[in-house]
This record gives sequence, C-alpha cells and structure tokens, in this order.
Amino acid sequence: MPQGTPEHVPDDGLTTRQRRNRPLVIVHTGPGKGKSTAAFGLALRAWNQGWPVGVFQFVKSAKWRVGEERALRLLGETGQGGAVSWNKMGEGWSWIQRDAGSHAEQAAEGWAQVTRDLSAQTYRLYVLDEFTYPMKWGWVDVDEVVSVLAARPGHQHVVITGRDADPRLIEAADLVTEMTKVKHPMDAGQKGQKGIEW
Amino acid sequence: MPQGTPEHVPDDGLTTRQRRNRPLVIVHTGPGKGKSTAAFGLALRAWNQGWPVGVFQFVKSAKWRVGEERALRLLGETGQGGAVSWNKMGEGWSWIQRDAGSHAEQAAEGWAQVTRDLSAQTYRLYVLDEFTYPMKWGWVDVDEVVSVLAARPGHQHVVITGRDADPRLIEAADLVTEMTKVKHPMDAGQKGQKGIEW
Repeated sequence: MPQGTPEHVPDDGLTTRQRRNRPLVIVHTGPGKGKSTAAFGLALRAWNQGWPVGVFQFVKSAKWRVGEERALRLLGETGQGGAVSWNKMGEGWSWIQRDAGSHAEQAAEGWAQVTRDLSAQTYRLYVLDEFTYPMKWGWVDVDEVVSVLAARPGHQHVVITGRDADPRLIEAADLVTEMTKVKHPMDAGQKGQKGIEW
Repeated sequence: MPQGTPEHVPDDGLTTRQRRNRPLVIVHTGPGKGKSTAAFGLALRAWNQGWPVGVFQFVKSAKWRVGEERALRLLGETGQGGAVSWNKMGEGWSWIQRDAGSHAEQAAEGWAQVTRDLSAQTYRLYVLDEFTYPMKWGWVDVDEVVSVLAARPGHQHVVITGRDADPRLIEAADLVTEMTKVKHPMDAGQKGQKGIEW
C-alpha cells in the first residue's frame, strides 16, 4: 500500500476533500514522555499555517513548559504566522481577575473558557495541556467535554494531553497516540534536568 | 512516592548533580504519531536554554517539517535563545556542494557530519529526525552509531526519531518512548492535512 493511502474509503457521503479537512480531536496519552512536547510541536505547524493557537495549561508548576511558552509567545508576536494565546492555570486564568479558588474550580473555569472559545471559533488549534487530569478527578465532566467537542462549529482542531485519558474521550477522538515508557533516566536514579524536562 | 523522586539511587559513584546533568541519548520510536513532533518540542526547550541546536533531517520530502523548520529557524535568528542549524538531506546537505549520490550515500554523509559535530561539540542538542531508517536499511552501521554516541565528549543531548529502532540503539539510549497508534484518521479513510501532518 502506498504511503498516505487510506486502508479503506468510508461510505460517509463526504468527498475526499471534505474528509481530509475534517477538524480533529487528537489525544496524546499514556505513561511515556512526549505527550505535551508533541502537542507543542503540532502548535508549530499550526503557527506556520497562520492559524490562531490557544494553549490552556491545566497544570500548576513554575518550571513546566517555560521553553515552549517563551518560544510560542515569541513566534506569535512576530506576525509571521498565527497568533498565540497562552493561558496558565498556575497564574490564575488571564480572563479572571480574582483569586479563582480551588484547583477544581480553576479547572472548571478553564474548561468554561474553552467552551466559550470553541463556540466563538476563537482559535484554529487548541492545546489543552494535561486536561485529562481534571476529567479524571471529576472536576470537569467527561460527557460534557465530549458533547461540546462534538458540537464545536467550523474547523477547529483540539489536542488534549495527559495520562489516563477516559475511554469516552478516546472513543470521541479522531487520532489517539499512546506514549509508552520503554526506558527512562529516573529508573537509573536520574532526576529531571533543564532543557529536557522543562 | 513524591513526583520527581527516583525509584532507587544507583551505586555509580556519581553525585546527584553529576547524575542529573548527564547528557542523554533519547529515542522516539514506534508506529504512532508524535515521534518527530515531540523531538521538535524538545528543541524549543533547548532553544529556551540558549543551547545551540542542530537538526539533521534524514528524510526526503518537500512537505515534512516545514512548520517546525520555519519556526525553529526564526527562533534561532531572534538571538533570544540558542542558535538553530537545520540540515536537510532532501536538498543535499548544506556542507556538500556536489550532488551527493544515492540516498544511502547521502545518509552516510549526514551521519559523518554528525560524528564530526559531536567530536567538535558543535551543538548541545541534536535532533536526528528519521535516523532509524538509514540504520534499518544498513546505510549507517548501528554499532558505529552506538560507539560514537558513547564516546561523545562534553554535555551533548541526542534525540533520534523513527520507527523500528534497533535493539542495540535502545539498549544504548537513556530515555526511550514508544509511540503507539491507538486510533488514526487514516483508518477512517482520511488523508493527511495541512497544519496537522506538516
């Protein structure tokens, strides 16, 4: 089979072009490295296409993603590709002025904003980094996420990262990659280091 | 166990700092998506640390990596992080003026340059994109690769991507992630699309 040829063509009434340009829900899950880094790699492609990119970082950590954030903000500011909006739960969400309360409340407010942005078609690519965790912990309802994603208008791609993606999310996704740990330096007693882990 | 704590501390005579700062050989392999995108995500972190980054693209394709290349070249040119050197086999390697001959010869010449750069400590992070294939096809000798990597001086990280990584390479690597395909749009008759595949 030539590379790039589908194994079969579905009987869904769509033309190849319509099918090709279908917006995707992408999930990077599993215990291995590379879930978020691959999502930010995808953001480079979106930026290059001139697409507005919205990053929602559902983690609280000073170190995490500092390199990606600085690079993508800078790229967005060049005006040579798409604009980049970077939203961090750790600093309170940008659209909330007050102290946002518990982690659970902050995560719910993050998802509420994503829902508004999807409805308004604010971005063309959404990176919902570590978003599986608020779902796992019951802070955000999985069925509601699936329903909002299914109903999103236009041509918006959504990438969700994190371990233990819910089976309902996997079922709803178009592209799912599981990152499996084969070998990790921590197994040999090595802690994370700059430039690699952050 | 607190996050970030090794499962055990090895009896290797190294301090935690020495162990932490050990240069890594990282392999992204497996049939799933995200092997290269995650490597380019790592390149963003390296750039952010001010590290010189050398990309060697062991593939021939007009479309592949155009977004990552444009973004990383632009980041390198800002002077706000590390410099980025992007080397493509598809255009002939930058250091070779003549037609480089067969793919096998070109791959061998690419690896020869990487060997020289490792010896000269030209970069702090090397992305050897799709480099498993020249090894798989016998164009580059796996034992020589392992030996050159083991003998590299200083503090140089090397990321190698591609399917079917040789067991000797996996054995020699510090960090190996296997990207497994759980679900892919091509299974549903969908071809690749811009912003996602390139």
